[in-house]
Amino acid sequence: MARTQGSHSGITGPRVRAVALRLFAKGGYAAVSMRAIAAEVGVQAGALYNYTPDKQSLLFDLMQSHMADLLAEAPLDAGAAPPEQLRQFVEFHIRFHADRPDAVFIAYMELRNLTRENFARIEELRRAYEDRLEAILRAGVASGDFGVADTRIATFAIIAMLTGVNTWFRAGGRLSLKEVTAQYWDMVQKAVAKAD
Amino acid sequence: MARTQGSHSGITGPRVRAVALRLFAKGGYAAVSMRAIAAEVGVQAGALYNYTPDKQSLLFDLMQSHMADLLAEAPLDAGAAPPEQLRQFVEFHIRFHADRPDAVFIAYMELRNLTRENFARIEELRRAYEDRLEAILRAGVASGDFGVADTRIATFAIIAMLTGVNTWFRAGGRLSLKEVTAQYWDMVQKAVAKAD
Repeated sequence: MARTQGSHSGITGPRVRAVALRLFAKGGYAAVSMRAIAAEVGVQAGALYNYTPDKQSLLFDLMQSHMADLLAEAPLDAGAAPPEQLRQFVEFHIRFHADRPDAVFIAYMELRNLTRENFARIEELRRAYEDRLEAILRAGVASGDFGVADTRIATFAIIAMLTGVNTWFRAGGRLSLKEVTAQYWDMVQKAVAKAD
Repeated sequence: MARTQGSHSGITGPRVRAVALRLFAKGGYAAVSMRAIAAEVGVQAGALYNYTPDKQSLLFDLMQSHMADLLAEAPLDAGAAPPEQLRQFVEFHIRFHADRPDAVFIAYMELRNLTRENFARIEELRRAYEDRLEAILRAGVASGDFGVADTRIATFAIIAMLTGVNTWFRAGGRLSLKEVTAQYWDMVQKAVAKAD
């Protein structure tokens, strides 16, 4: 079963990432060694370094690709009316996060374990995502659809509210994700509405 | 400067807790040793065990007293109209959490490091706090003041939104905490309002 290093890396890479994601989410970055990741992948510890230079790079890679996916998949329909754009954003945000609880958990929990430079790069991506929502809110204020005093604060409030779904929602529970999303959309819609 | 063990514990206890809180918040529970806590307090590692049986007890103690303070200080004014009770809750929640960022950070970040039994006890306290807010929302639905389809979901949404302030608010920034609170109250108030 000898393989060239190239094909070996190609097969192992996604598995290393999946294992690292699961172990970091379960035990925390600080408590998980490269040796433990290698053992779970089923390779020698040394073989891991064919894939990643170190544990920090692995963490950064996981967080960066999570944020890159978020930005790539977020709806961007500048032609739609602001309330419709906001609805799409709310539905997307809840679904995207519900689909990848481990990656979301790490994206919040392990920020403190990034080097200063890596932290700055992740923050830049997070900021870019927040800017997407803020642009929708600004457009809605300009069009007269929304009544938001400070679009930056409303952005933070809405994202925190929506991401919170991950802390309590369990598939197969009292409500489906679709029902939950409808209720969050109702609250968000009202929260940004013009006061009577 | 010899002291009896009793007075020694009395003086050292609050300091041990303060140091543990700061170190756990900074480096994470898993990465902080009892030895490191002792060094920062300025005592021998063995002396720490006069105060706490182990690191798990120290973590649990910090989280439990945080939740106990939260419950003890939360406004409970069942005589007031539901919108007024909700306003008091929102103002209290933001201020209480802004005042103790390290304890809040740990209360969320270190849940996974509690033993199963300790986790269950902290969850019980958290549930009791959530129940306070849900009781206000239910009262407001009953009185016709609020239009909330599911008071449990609205409870989760509001708490996540308000706690999120801690992730971005810095004293001395663009807005005062009072101004920020006023904007969150505006959004919460609208989010639970009856639809037109």
